[in-house]
Amino acid sequence: MADAKVAIPVSEESSPYPLIARQGAANALVSIGDVVFGGSEFVVIAGPCAVESQEQIEHAARMVQQTGGRVLRGGAFKPRTSPYSFQGLGLEGIEYLRRASLKAEIPFITEVMTVDSVEELEARVDAFQIGTRNMHNFDLLRAIGETRKPVMLKRGFGATLKEWMFAAEYIAKGGNSNIILCERGIRSFAPETRFTLDLAGAVWAKQESCLPVIIDPSHATGLPQLISPLTRAAAAAGLDGVMVEIHDDPSQALSDGDQALTMRQFETLIRELKPVVEAMGRRMENV
Amino acid sequence: MADAKVAIPVSEESSPYPLIARQGAANALVSIGDVVFGGSEFVVIAGPCAVESQEQIEHAARMVQQTGGRVLRGGAFKPRTSPYSFQGLGLEGIEYLRRASLKAEIPFITEVMTVDSVEELEARVDAFQIGTRNMHNFDLLRAIGETRKPVMLKRGFGATLKEWMFAAEYIAKGGNSNIILCERGIRSFAPETRFTLDLAGAVWAKQESCLPVIIDPSHATGLPQLISPLTRAAAAAGLDGVMVEIHDDPSQALSDGDQALTMRQFETLIRELKPVVEAMGRRMENV
Amino acid sequence: MADAKVAIPVSEESSPYPLIARQGAANALVSIGDVVFGGSEFVVIAGPCAVESQEQIEHAARMVQQTGGRVLRGGAFKPRTSPYSFQGLGLEGIEYLRRASLKAEIPFITEVMTVDSVEELEARVDAFQIGTRNMHNFDLLRAIGETRKPVMLKRGFGATLKEWMFAAEYIAKGGNSNIILCERGIRSFAPETRFTLDLAGAVWAKQESCLPVIIDPSHATGLPQLISPLTRAAAAAGLDGVMVEIHDDPSQALSDGDQALTMRQFETLIRELKPVVEAMGRRMENV
Amino acid sequence: MADAKVAIPVSEESSPYPLIARQGAANALVSIGDVVFGGSEFVVIAGPCAVESQEQIEHAARMVQQTGGRVLRGGAFKPRTSPYSFQGLGLEGIEYLRRASLKAEIPFITEVMTVDSVEELEARVDAFQIGTRNMHNFDLLRAIGETRKPVMLKRGFGATLKEWMFAAEYIAKGGNSNIILCERGIRSFAPETRFTLDLAGAVWAKQESCLPVIIDPSHATGLPQLISPLTRAAAAAGLDGVMVEIHDDPSQALSDGDQALTMRQFETLIRELKPVVEAMGRRMENV
Repeated sequence: MADAKVAIPVSEESSPYPLIARQGAANALVSIGDVVFGGSEFVVIAGPCAVESQEQIEHAARMVQQTGGRVLRGGAFKPRTSPYSFQGLGLEGIEYLRRASLKAEIPFITEVMTVDSVEELEARVDAFQIGTRNMHNFDLLRAIGETRKPVMLKRGFGATLKEWMFAAEYIAKGGNSNIILCERGIRSFAPETRFTLDLAGAVWAKQESCLPVIIDPSHATGLPQLISPLTRAAAAAGLDGVMVEIHDDPSQALSDGDQALTMRQFETLIRELKPVVEAMGRRMENV
Repeated sequence: MADAKVAIPVSEESSPYPLIARQGAANALVSIGDVVFGGSEFVVIAGPCAVESQEQIEHAARMVQQTGGRVLRGGAFKPRTSPYSFQGLGLEGIEYLRRASLKAEIPFITEVMTVDSVEELEARVDAFQIGTRNMHNFDLLRAIGETRKPVMLKRGFGATLKEWMFAAEYIAKGGNSNIILCERGIRSFAPETRFTLDLAGAVWAKQESCLPVIIDPSHATGLPQLISPLTRAAAAAGLDGVMVEIHDDPSQALSDGDQALTMRQFETLIRELKPVVEAMGRRMENV
Repeated sequence: MADAKVAIPVSEESSPYPLIARQGAANALVSIGDVVFGGSEFVVIAGPCAVESQEQIEHAARMVQQTGGRVLRGGAFKPRTSPYSFQGLGLEGIEYLRRASLKAEIPFITEVMTVDSVEELEARVDAFQIGTRNMHNFDLLRAIGETRKPVMLKRGFGATLKEWMFAAEYIAKGGNSNIILCERGIRSFAPETRFTLDLAGAVWAKQESCLPVIIDPSHATGLPQLISPLTRAAAAAGLDGVMVEIHDDPSQALSDGDQALTMRQFETLIRELKPVVEAMGRRMENV
Repeated sequence: MADAKVAIPVSEESSPYPLIARQGAANALVSIGDVVFGGSEFVVIAGPCAVESQEQIEHAARMVQQTGGRVLRGGAFKPRTSPYSFQGLGLEGIEYLRRASLKAEIPFITEVMTVDSVEELEARVDAFQIGTRNMHNFDLLRAIGETRKPVMLKRGFGATLKEWMFAAEYIAKGGNSNIILCERGIRSFAPETRFTLDLAGAVWAKQESCLPVIIDPSHATGLPQLISPLTRAAAAAGLDGVMVEIHDDPSQALSDGDQALTMRQFETLIRELKPVVEAMGRRMENV
């Protein structure tokens, strides 16, 4: 059923981004650990915005794994608007993530922000994330393109869909095609949600490229009560997964706590999601 | 399940738009003919952008009804950017719609553009539509508020979510609470789709108000290949229906042909939609 | 010097809005009372957002006239987001405006919101204003097109420049070419100012059409400290005038008080503006 | 007169970006070569988008210097949406710029895109430019902060005004306060100009910070016929300068030729600008 939606195949000859362009029904499959994106599974990535302590991230990893999440997320290097805000635990946070990931037997993804750190992180992380503010950091795109790690490329909140495709092409041109696209909301005039989730744009990206596409409704909306409906919407629209923020105690989070789901809300999300995923002829593991 | 998503009830006392505000789990039910919006049915409205002839609209009505559409749409008075563009067939078009609707036994909805015509149209149409360019035409909102006809209020493409709520309150203040909200895309910088469908905003509106909420993916995106995925997304997000444009021969349409679905694409949409609607614990009639 | 900027004349044959399109260097001149827009004068329109009392508006008219303002503005019918907000004094407010205008010997402009009121107001006002929310109210555009009163057409805050041109063409098609265009800010993602003043768009409109073009920095920014710099910018860019909000006691205004200039700030604005207007080879009257 | 516009001084204590915040009337002065930004001079920076050859840039430097431009611009490292587009001449282009700059006795500014190249370029350029796509490249901001070179920080086309202030604070925190802010247009829904120049935002930045602020109307609008009016507008609004693109033969430019001014248009711009600058009580050198 997933393939039925790909109505306008783009031939390699004519595409301005030939390495990532869709050609017929074949989807690229991208693995983080043993979790495959772009195939028959609808994948849930979950975790806190920022790694805060060994205990916090270990607990989160266990909860995510037990509830049906398949990949752990957590930021150790945080892009912050103000130079005076908490910038993350850095390499120490990466170590916390590694240990939590191994213990709970769930792979993890984390943001990389500087070219210098790519080599050091490559040996330690399961997947890179390129954040929305770095989508146009061509230097970083090239550096990641020279690794062979899977990378999730978030759309810039001020970027057009084609610019997003071209950013992926920059990575692929270096030889790394293990790219997952993530729509995380764009800037618009509408103030009620933090950004405007461009679900139509995510579907467009799925049809235009061969890459897996997921959404991040937590950053897109900033409103916990919208996360579960939008996750189901992503599944029904034929996308490949979702990344959500959870926190044991959102009111105490060091970063973006307001938008995080409690564990109980996350369980409800998974329970409500499953029938929709199955109605689409796809599956969820461990649920 | 639908009620589970309404996480933040707004009390009547504190709402700035008390007549339409959500209070607990109860949804307002709005009927067009015998079709109920806001209940257990997920409703598909379909038809051509503009009424072009008696034959065209009769054929469309029959096709819509046979395929699983529940309400016929068609414009007789068209809001056009240029005063030199085709402005619709006017009252003659309304007559065509009426006859087609009666023959195919399917109610219809059509746009009203002027205060003067409200009285004349009230006796002839099953439901009014207020278009995106008139969401802030307070004069028209008041005039419709004095009728008792169901009305679909489209969100202005430059309007915030709260402004949309207030526009509904203008109608309700006149005594007419038969209001269906329709998100049809907002203006953003992203050029690949005609507008940016604000699905999160539609879910927000469903949680904030007691009114049925649907989306119009045809006008929102202008791209036929996105209509079916977004329709399923609306169902999975807990919204109440969808309005889509269809045309026998999109290339010959007098208005907005590019975004219309062929009848065959429309049949596929209905077939792909049904399992998602059922997974949400809701139903489609006549499918 | 003004004509030197019109670099791309649009020929009548090719323009999609032939009645308002620029053809060579000739500007249309539009008069409100004895004040001419589009000629050598740079015109300042000023007044309170809403008419609140006879005393208030008489005082404002006198102050505006004495300080160098040339046209009085004041709203008697107010488009308000909420149906529960102050909607203006209506016809009583129009009477207050008329008396204040006659006494201070300064013409006035005021917003018209409904088709029904056009005839009644035509006999009583010096100029109509069509507000940003009504730019796409085609019914109202047509009704104003059938009068011969000057009309200031504000750009819709969600409208493209071409849509604004077409709205003017709707008016001109009825036979009324006494149109002044007013850019008043568009919606954007930037939250620091209320709207984003599109000064480049206003200059574009001046080059694309033969009509006078002014700006409304008060509504565009909502920040009093930006009004004077932006007024000078409008003059230096070759535009024809400005409309600003003033209030004796902004903190007590019934509508939009935060953005109003005090009389003292208005005097400073005029004093700082004059040398820029003269540097452009134009003039201000009564200063 | 310039100081009169700074109506809302921000005290150091309360500012979230204390190193760049305005405190009273004092402006920071930033020099590129012997040209001072933020003082009594209104500065024009001009040059081609990309350095294409030694001859081209030498000719441009001479023309800019003779016509009244004070700083030469030219890109040797070009941020391009597509990895397959011309990426600039790199270090060779920097050498061309240096020679042209020395010969014509006019300092130059050029974009820096990677952290690795900062040290190498620091010894060779007169000023750095951080482009709109790198405004949120915190790594690059920090690296530039550790140099003592003047830097022009362009606003991200998707960035709020406060985010722009914070980006400047990142640079200042490293010890480098030689920052010039440049507004170059933001993304909006309006398609007629390439971006929407936020002149009000530039004035806001001038009032909020102590830094010099200029605009780049060439990139903001993409329309040569708007450059001269907007340059005058910047001067009249109290800003400190402008950066414009010129090209001997815009139709043959390797990058962004459509928006470049011919030398003759540039001469007209300078001639029309001077009286406005003088009316503001400021001056232009070499004109």
